This record gives sequence, C-alpha cells and structure tokens, in this order.
Amino acid sequence: MNLRRIGVIHSPHREAAGTPVQSALAAGVKGAVQVFPEYAGELRDLDGFERNWLAYWFDRAKSPQMVVTPYLDTTPRGLFAARAPCRPNPIGPSSVRLLGISGHVLYVDGLDLLDDTPLLDIKLFIPAFDTFEAKRIGYCAVHFGAAVAGGGADGLLLDA
Amino acid sequence: MNLRRIGVIHSPHREAAGTPVQSALAAGVKGAVQVFPEYAGELRDLDGFERNWLAYWFDRAKSPQMVVTPYLDTTPRGLFAARAPCRPNPIGPSSVRLLGISGHVLYVDGLDLLDDTPLLDIKLFIPAFDTFEAKRIGYCAVHFGAAVAGGGADGLLLDA
Repeated sequence: MNLRRIGVIHSPHREAAGTPVQSALAAGVKGAVQVFPEYAGELRDLDGFERNWLAYWFDRAKSPQMVVTPYLDTTPRGLFAARAPCRPNPIGPSSVRLLGISGHVLYVDGLDLLDDTPLLDIKLFIPAFDTFEAKRIGYCAVHFGAAVAGGGADGLLLDA
Repeated sequence: MNLRRIGVIHSPHREAAGTPVQSALAAGVKGAVQVFPEYAGELRDLDGFERNWLAYWFDRAKSPQMVVTPYLDTTPRGLFAARAPCRPNPIGPSSVRLLGISGHVLYVDGLDLLDDTPLLDIKLFIPAFDTFEAKRIGYCAVHFGAAVAGGGADGLLLDA
C-alpha cells in the first residue's frame, strides 16, 4: 500500500504553532493546491463545486503514539479518539472552500495544514452524502457540547 | 509514504454489485471492524462516541482513470469530481455508527465497502467539526438538488 504524491498544498502556515487544528476553524486561511500537470485531466467538472475534500500526508508528524492529550484537554486519550497527526497512517482529510481553478492549481479557503503538505487526493463535497448527525460525542461534550448541533466550536480541542 | 494495515473491516458484501456506494446510503449494513491487538490501546475513550470515521484502502479497485462515468450518470466526469475507487491513491473515508466495542473489535452500522477491506485509521466524529454547508454541487445538482440541504439522497450518483 504505497501512496503517490499527486501535488502539493501551499498554506500560509510554516509551523504548527498558529495553524488551525481543524478545517472547520480555518475560514480565511487561503492557499493553493498545486496538482501535478499529469493529473490536470482529473480536475474536469470540479469547478462547479463549492467545496472539496482534500486528502494529504502529515509529512511532519511525530512518531505514532498510543495516547495523546488533545489541545485544551488535560487527560490522555486513545489516539483513535483524537485527531492528532501522530497516527500509524498519518493521513488527514480537510474540507475546503473552492475559490477558483486556474490550470492545474486550485485556490482554496479553510486550510488547517502546513505549507508544502503532500497532496494525495481530491474529492467533491456534497452535503447529502457528507452530512451526518451524532448526539453522543464522548469526552468532547464537556468542552463544547453546545456546538454539537452544528454551530461553531468554542474551543480548539483536537490536533488535526 | 507507505501505509500499514492496522486491522480489517468485515462487511456482509463480498462483491461491488449490491454494495452501497456511500456510507450515507448504507444504514442497516452492519459489520465488524477488527483492529489488530497491538492497536487496542488506541481505542481508549472511543466508546463514548456515536460515530466514527474509518479510513481504508480500496484493495480491489481498478487502475486509476482520468475520467469516470458515475453511477446513474451518463457523462464522463473528471475523477476528482467523482468518488470512484479507481484513484491514484485508492483511500476512502466512511462515517459509520458505532454500535459497540468488545475488546479490539468495533461493531458498526453504515458500511459501504467490501468484506476484508484493509483498515488504515479510525477518527472520532464531531458534528461541530465535521459539518459543512455547500450550495453549489456542480453536475450533481441535476440528480438530487433537493437533497442538498442535508436530507437523504434520492439517487445513487457516485461510486464510492
């Protein structure tokens, strides 16, 4: 199971400090997704979509850990109950707003990742397929239960 | 960028025909996510969450294609404007409902994948971080524009 780099994501953030920890908290953080020219044909039809999923490789993540203490939390949590980048497979998804496409470069808003992050995939976003409800959110309810219904998060709880 | 198998997903579907094409359309399709014992510690705290994201490897996907004709569509679309599994990096996400955990096995509902699919990652689901709005959904609007607001999809448009 080998991944291939299909492009690179350019973000204004070059270090973890100050980088939003979730795309839902990254409105206003704009950048460019540079798809390598050999994948330009795969971009056809994408310009009609307001949002896209990006999949990428956390190339600067630390070694995998069994437990992590999420940001603004004080208790170690199992890694799969957190979103820290130090995962057995350091891949991440982000939902970004598509501002425009020029050639094989996507201009996007909502980047919660570091500059020069390797791009792995792009997928269209459709609310009918990408919206799910969940009332029980475990230990996170303490921190921002009021946001469960879909509003903004008051605290930054997770890492990536 | 090498991936490691961290477990295996057991689904009732053994071939693509009849397998739901999206987790949002797979309610009632139950199965087991068997995490390898060495990752049991990473599951701590996960039982409090109603939903999780699974990341996995489309191990039976065809070779990558530049364009695909989505299910129920008749026009070839750029691969990145579709969700067919035949991608440069055949990784997929699914949002599943967690029914329970026993040891290092998760029992889940909402599987849109084949039996014995290699598991890559598990991440908690939080509506506040995982809900996004989008009004423009490109060519998909023709097929189920009414579902854009977040309701169920009337048609099965995409492949995976």
